[in-house]
Amino acid sequence: MASAVKKNAHQFNKQQFESVLTSRFFYAPAFEIYGGVAGLYDYGPPGSSLQANIISEWRKHFIIEDSMMELDTTIMTPAPVFEASGHVARFADWMVKDTKTGEVLRADHLVKAVLKSRLDGDREARGQKAQPEDEKDKKKKKKNVKTTIVKLPDEEVKLYEEILNRLDDYSGPELGQLCRQHKIVNPDTGNEVTEPQEFNLMFTSSIGPTGQHQGYLRPETAQGHFLNFNRLLEFNYNRVPFASAQIGRSFRNEISPRAGLLRVREFTMAEIEHFVDPLDKHHEKFPQIRDVILRLLTKDVQEAGKNDLMEMTVGEAVEKGVIANETLGYFVARIYQFLIKIGIDAGKLRFRQHMSNEMAHYAADCWDAEIESSYGWTECVGCADRSAYDLTVHSEKTGKPLVVRQALKEPIVTEKEVAEFNNKTLGKTFGRDLKLVTQAVADLDEEGLLKLKSELANGSGTITVDGRKFKLTPDLLTIKRTVIKQTTREFTPNVIEPSFGLGRILYMLLEHSWWTREEDEQRGVLSLPILVAPIKVLIVPLSAKEELQPIVQEVSAKLRREGVFSRVDDSTASIGKRYARNDELGTPFGLTVDFASVKNRTLTLRERDTTAQLIGSVEDVVDVVIALVRGDMTWEEASHKLAKYDGVQAVG
Amino acid sequence: MASAVKKNAHQFNKQQFESVLTSRFFYAPAFEIYGGVAGLYDYGPPGSSLQANIISEWRKHFIIEDSMMELDTTIMTPAPVFEASGHVARFADWMVKDTKTGEVLRADHLVKAVLKSRLDGDREARGQKAQPEDEKDKKKKKKNVKTTIVKLPDEEVKLYEEILNRLDDYSGPELGQLCRQHKIVNPDTGNEVTEPQEFNLMFTSSIGPTGQHQGYLRPETAQGHFLNFNRLLEFNYNRVPFASAQIGRSFRNEISPRAGLLRVREFTMAEIEHFVDPLDKHHEKFPQIRDVILRLLTKDVQEAGKNDLMEMTVGEAVEKGVIANETLGYFVARIYQFLIKIGIDAGKLRFRQHMSNEMAHYAADCWDAEIESSYGWTECVGCADRSAYDLTVHSEKTGKPLVVRQALKEPIVTEKEVAEFNNKTLGKTFGRDLKLVTQAVADLDEEGLLKLKSELANGSGTITVDGRKFKLTPDLLTIKRTVIKQTTREFTPNVIEPSFGLGRILYMLLEHSWWTREEDEQRGVLSLPILVAPIKVLIVPLSAKEELQPIVQEVSAKLRREGVFSRVDDSTASIGKRYARNDELGTPFGLTVDFASVKNRTLTLRERDTTAQLIGSVEDVVDVVIALVRGDMTWEEASHKLAKYDGVQAVG
Repeated sequence: MASAVKKNAHQFNKQQFESVLTSRFFYAPAFEIYGGVAGLYDYGPPGSSLQANIISEWRKHFIIEDSMMELDTTIMTPAPVFEASGHVARFADWMVKDTKTGEVLRADHLVKAVLKSRLDGDREARGQKAQPEDEKDKKKKKKNVKTTIVKLPDEEVKLYEEILNRLDDYSGPELGQLCRQHKIVNPDTGNEVTEPQEFNLMFTSSIGPTGQHQGYLRPETAQGHFLNFNRLLEFNYNRVPFASAQIGRSFRNEISPRAGLLRVREFTMAEIEHFVDPLDKHHEKFPQIRDVILRLLTKDVQEAGKNDLMEMTVGEAVEKGVIANETLGYFVARIYQFLIKIGIDAGKLRFRQHMSNEMAHYAADCWDAEIESSYGWTECVGCADRSAYDLTVHSEKTGKPLVVRQALKEPIVTEKEVAEFNNKTLGKTFGRDLKLVTQAVADLDEEGLLKLKSELANGSGTITVDGRKFKLTPDLLTIKRTVIKQTTREFTPNVIEPSFGLGRILYMLLEHSWWTREEDEQRGVLSLPILVAPIKVLIVPLSAKEELQPIVQEVSAKLRREGVFSRVDDSTASIGKRYARNDELGTPFGLTVDFASVKNRTLTLRERDTTAQLIGSVEDVVDVVIALVRGDMTWEEASHKLAKYDGVQAVG
Repeated sequence: MASAVKKNAHQFNKQQFESVLTSRFFYAPAFEIYGGVAGLYDYGPPGSSLQANIISEWRKHFIIEDSMMELDTTIMTPAPVFEASGHVARFADWMVKDTKTGEVLRADHLVKAVLKSRLDGDREARGQKAQPEDEKDKKKKKKNVKTTIVKLPDEEVKLYEEILNRLDDYSGPELGQLCRQHKIVNPDTGNEVTEPQEFNLMFTSSIGPTGQHQGYLRPETAQGHFLNFNRLLEFNYNRVPFASAQIGRSFRNEISPRAGLLRVREFTMAEIEHFVDPLDKHHEKFPQIRDVILRLLTKDVQEAGKNDLMEMTVGEAVEKGVIANETLGYFVARIYQFLIKIGIDAGKLRFRQHMSNEMAHYAADCWDAEIESSYGWTECVGCADRSAYDLTVHSEKTGKPLVVRQALKEPIVTEKEVAEFNNKTLGKTFGRDLKLVTQAVADLDEEGLLKLKSELANGSGTITVDGRKFKLTPDLLTIKRTVIKQTTREFTPNVIEPSFGLGRILYMLLEHSWWTREEDEQRGVLSLPILVAPIKVLIVPLSAKEELQPIVQEVSAKLRREGVFSRVDDSTASIGKRYARNDELGTPFGLTVDFASVKNRTLTLRERDTTAQLIGSVEDVVDVVIALVRGDMTWEEASHKLAKYDGVQAVG
């Protein structure tokens, strides 16, 4: 919007912001009238609409633009799938219980909160400024532990810092030992805590009437892509690369959900699985994004205990090996473009590389799009090169090949020794042992075959199976040097996986869009981009008088026909109040229908951020607002097409 | 499409049809490589895209057209919600087990299958034609029980028919008794079955790490609307009527899922809850649909044991009381319009009214949109007037009012006797009994107050509480005739609920759209309307030669820019095979890029149903196909804009 509006006149007031989100029903705790359940939220009309618009743009930006194959797979998943994927064994957090109250705490969060608080107390005792809270930790911390001002011995400070730096590395028993060693207790009650127990984060259920099939609610949509790999491959005419994409609900039974939409038990994800030849991770469209500039927090910088950002183009990052390959780089850049397009503040966006100790053992490289908010930096999109892990484990578990067979342009020609059997004489000679013997020969390596070949040339050889010796003669088999022409290549594709947490992105977008008017801190505005704003146009009849109705209906019908989502606010509140309420909803444009509209067929058009108003004929104003919503016209251009409203024309 | 294509040249071949759906990956059994799980399906690219297009049209047709409020609520639901709604007690089926194999059967399905089979055997024995299978039952029946030709005594025939007619009325124990009485055994094994046990169809889980919160996966999205009623009401400026709408996943742990997408354990629903004043169920937009003609199967007709359809306009149906009220009629008509618009065959669509014995006790009227397929008639949309049931039960359970408070245009003025207390003297007189006495007076009805008033006028009266008598005198209280002016009215709105099973509709649409070419039964075509077709345009380069690539890219980019979903099929299959494959995918238009395209910049445009082809310049053809996809042009009009392709121009 062309405007000189001062959006940072007032400090961000989180309480005010969150109360607007709830009262305008962007989202609210689910089952509220039943007392609510932690970590479950319902989206109301503006939240649903904002989410639908983000998803619609995601579909255009990723699926349509790159001809991805969309999937819609099942949430309720039988146990063997997650046994193979490793989720049953490893998708768990360590929890401890307060030995007296039974309160459940995440073990790593507890250790972190207590030690950090002691370090803060120490710093204060030493007269240093308390370290600015590591924003990433703020949201993870169980509760704000009250800091006690106590100076610690120097070696203890050092030890605590080391523990905090490698907190992700500790096993459950080690976390338990830390609690005992450093007298870490539940800060709320002062009670000791139990030994850490593992808690799997998947919701369990059982499928069918007999209860014999254990089921899990998927914690991500990814497995649904992998399990359908063969059908997807066929749909893509048996060629890689290709990508599948899915938008859907996933579930994680968090131990102690918190931080609003950032750590919840049920959430909507959008995931892409891009299947690629492991020997060729270049990307056809890489040149199109080569010059996108990214802010990167590399693993080297983090491992050196720093958090300096490097600014460079994707092209440079891939060339220098900072990002592992073109395909990964392509998606990192496309994620960046998407987030900016929907309204995320570029200054609050960085890509953080996983350090060696946090990356899954099979992953080749992994970058998180992290977005900054009042909760600190939060991972909102993960982008990992998962190598061939997923397809391999499912193929092993099911015995079904999940591979690509590719015709080689140039056949690969090799020579090797090959045994040819005379089954008739072999059968007569060895009877029931036939298979045993032929398998033993087939298992010989090149060297073994050459040895046997020369023995046979000298009359006979022997082969030993399970301690038994069998005599082989030239009438039983021949070993020949043979030319092998390999015309197809078979391989398990690697997977590059961009995975989006839509609820987190939605929250970040809301926080980045929020500001309060310079002249009145109570008047909040949500400057959502037109593209994703829940409602595009507000129609406001000046009064409830019947005579205004026909124009309201006419304008409303016209907008609906053109696919522009509008809403009539004909409540009894004052016009100023109605506009203020819709500024909080992020509605970019308002049309006022007044008595001049009836008399002169004029409408006034209001812009949300500047509150500037223009006036024109009903037809012109409706055309302009449609063009504005579609992005075919800027407000600047609209100001040239329509007259500035001086507050007088309407009276006319 | 303007064409004289003969679509009914061949009989419907279900096996061929279903094998195409799977091989083209519209949908396939989920977890197939793990052996699959009954009742769970994954949608592949064409199925997902078809579903997304149906949903998109649903949003336009219902949400945008009627300014509904969209919601996106939580699937994982704490137990008290479904205790209040009645699902914990009643959302169950009766199952029996084979006493030897343990196989689980639905009790009602078993009784029905066995008795029907005996009746069929009887009819054959009597030399009558076997009754044409009641199509509605076909899908419900557990298995095709083998019919034995045995004549039954006349009274037994009558008894069986009676049982079948009121099968929905039997309780579990009654079903068990029927099995014993009529020697009903598992037809597959001949083994007896156990006593029926109730099996609740909700999937259970537990929320949080301590397992103390039982959770259910919602079996419908409706509760999410009801629980948010107060927020929705506020969003609508505290007025009714308004409607909320939600599209989302629901779950039912079916005892024995079958019939493909028609009875599954996880499915996508679209539900509307329209909240309306119980005293005023007229609908503002009723005049717009008054003349829509519906085929109705009324409860009276069914209760008379018939199934004749009545054809009448919605207006007539509401006037005559066939449909209970305007709002219900409005939605029935809108459902009809939606189904026809997306391509459901009007000849295979009827609205069936629930009979008294199948309607929930609280429902005022209920109509199912039933669609006919090879599975018989299947409920695909329910449309019920649920009265005030849902809001009432949740309000009772939580103690939170879920009501509308409406300012009365004309205040209601009434006169009644009202007691006014003198608290000072009352306190002195009665001490601790003060509340007891005043409450007793407040509880008096008009008659009691009048009696006390006259006693007081005569000096004193008495009131008896729990057997104790209290003397009342005029210094303690006065009873006065008072004018009461009531300015607001408080009521619990009624709910009209259209509820769509999207998977069922999607399957019906596929079956209604399927036919095979007159000249070759092996060549199937899916004549999906352009509006919902998964892919709108297929781009087919004649060969893999490099020189065709630039035009393929150009056309593809242009279509993408215009938001037209296209796909390039540059596989090595012959051009005929590629078109045949995409006829099976329902792709309405094809563009062939050949060497004439390079030489003369021409393209040929192919229409799916007729296989007719037109030719023109790249620019003209692309413009035409965009207009066709958007519905701005018919094929007839396109044929006038472009030249008929004679198969020669391309060689040019």
